[in-house]
Amino acid sequence: MLLGVDIGGTSVKFGVVDEKFNIVHRSNLRTEKGISEKDFLAAVAAECAAIAKEYPIERIGAGSPGYVDMDAGVIKMAVNLPFKDTPVAKCISDATGIPTVVGNDATCAAIGELYAGLGAGVRNMVFVTIGTGIGGGIVIDRKIYLGTRGDAGEIGHICVNVDGEQCGCGRRGCWELYASVTALKKRTARAAKAHPNSILARQVEQEGVSGRTAFNAARMGCKVAQLVLDRYLDYLAVGIGNLICIFRPDVVALGGGLSGEGDGLLKPLCAKLQSDIPVEISKLKNDAGMIGAAMLHRSIEEAKK
Amino acid sequence: MLLGVDIGGTSVKFGVVDEKFNIVHRSNLRTEKGISEKDFLAAVAAECAAIAKEYPIERIGAGSPGYVDMDAGVIKMAVNLPFKDTPVAKCISDATGIPTVVGNDATCAAIGELYAGLGAGVRNMVFVTIGTGIGGGIVIDRKIYLGTRGDAGEIGHICVNVDGEQCGCGRRGCWELYASVTALKKRTARAAKAHPNSILARQVEQEGVSGRTAFNAARMGCKVAQLVLDRYLDYLAVGIGNLICIFRPDVVALGGGLSGEGDGLLKPLCAKLQSDIPVEISKLKNDAGMIGAAMLHRSIEEAKK
Repeated sequence: MLLGVDIGGTSVKFGVVDEKFNIVHRSNLRTEKGISEKDFLAAVAAECAAIAKEYPIERIGAGSPGYVDMDAGVIKMAVNLPFKDTPVAKCISDATGIPTVVGNDATCAAIGELYAGLGAGVRNMVFVTIGTGIGGGIVIDRKIYLGTRGDAGEIGHICVNVDGEQCGCGRRGCWELYASVTALKKRTARAAKAHPNSILARQVEQEGVSGRTAFNAARMGCKVAQLVLDRYLDYLAVGIGNLICIFRPDVVALGGGLSGEGDGLLKPLCAKLQSDIPVEISKLKNDAGMIGAAMLHRSIEEAKK
Repeated sequence: MLLGVDIGGTSVKFGVVDEKFNIVHRSNLRTEKGISEKDFLAAVAAECAAIAKEYPIERIGAGSPGYVDMDAGVIKMAVNLPFKDTPVAKCISDATGIPTVVGNDATCAAIGELYAGLGAGVRNMVFVTIGTGIGGGIVIDRKIYLGTRGDAGEIGHICVNVDGEQCGCGRRGCWELYASVTALKKRTARAAKAHPNSILARQVEQEGVSGRTAFNAARMGCKVAQLVLDRYLDYLAVGIGNLICIFRPDVVALGGGLSGEGDGLLKPLCAKLQSDIPVEISKLKNDAGMIGAAMLHRSIEEAKK
């Protein structure tokens, strides 16, 4: 059996995955804000060791946001997490005696989807995670494509607006500035403020702003929310259209928080795309990253073939 | 020896390529405007047959603009050429008795550059041809990537402006509308008209508008031309930056008419890109397509491995 560890900003998820990709055990570790690197590593390694006592774990894989050096087994940097060249792989394998690798979370999600989700039976796939930012994984010939230096596929930073906003990455008009959940929330908040009598504004007042707010208000018939979504989906469609144009894959899989909207997201998006390439919601949903982390060893081996 | 045929809008170039990628024979066929499909095919096949009498040609490859069905050996459609589901491969092989394949011209140029140019020794490469439109070839793990249906890599149609001009492809704001030589010529003509006393305007008056006009005028110290180029290069850089971000290749190779500007193009472009990935002018220049066409058989075989 394999252990997959999905490191996130607010919690770390652990899953024991059998050879048929069933998750036979799950556990969860909430990460306190401001936790130190040392305490974080100790807690994660201890949970892995505890699971390895219960299950015959052969290999462990961990996925993390941020910049990961897979060859070194090191998380170089991740926003909201106490990592700075942190040797996560070594730390877990020292505590468990089990071979451990670490990879970027979006890469792991794409790997999970490739083996156990929409990717079963396809050759080429693009996986797009729509969350705080936009991440992705590119699958070519059933292998994750990471480029010569291991850092390819940063699809959230393709420019869709030459004169657009400055991005933290140093470029302008990056796709994720317009099409991430963060962007949708900003657009929602702005519209609610501008239209204080709208259903959208009422929703925001009652529940605050989330990636779901505009979808919910639009379902209640709110025209303001509909406009927010329409413009947001224009941008989402542009980036996905670009990936389709470049890769012409068998399928584009959508993951991350927003993919929870299901058809509410997919139908208007596909209407804008008008593409002959299927675009679908991730089959594994929130488990893609965990299952993919568990499969990371195998993916690395197959990429070397 | 191999025969490469490079079909263009105004002429067809033939080259006999030896095992060291030397071109040991060249010939050229001017294509008259309005020539029929039948006459065109007959002329090309006759020239191939004549060459095959002089040289021990083992295989023939032809590259053409437009939409090519490689599996069928058919050019489905090409602007300015009399093709409509035209069985070019069969026609040449019938006339010569030599196995013949056909591919897209930008794909061929990328193949040529891969085997005999900047691609020697690299794993991943993006080839960008900047001409009437923008074409390209994506090389992954030393194989041309064409996607599941054979039509990937249409990089000229990635959107860089969500609210941009309508493109003939049906989408909006496509990169080639802003960064092709056609776009540069439009920008040059517009600026010359708006600034009739500029060096640029004088150049346009004397020599007409070409992709070189703004470069030449800028070298003469024309500020108007400098502005034209600066804005044009912003757009060129955005698309190349996107490709770098997605592929993180070993090298980006620039081909097509504009690559003739050499350092005059490369230096300001790289200054805008600020990338750690090398961007270079194609080593094979105008021969990339012909040499690549000659290598097309081998490329197809290696892609199947």
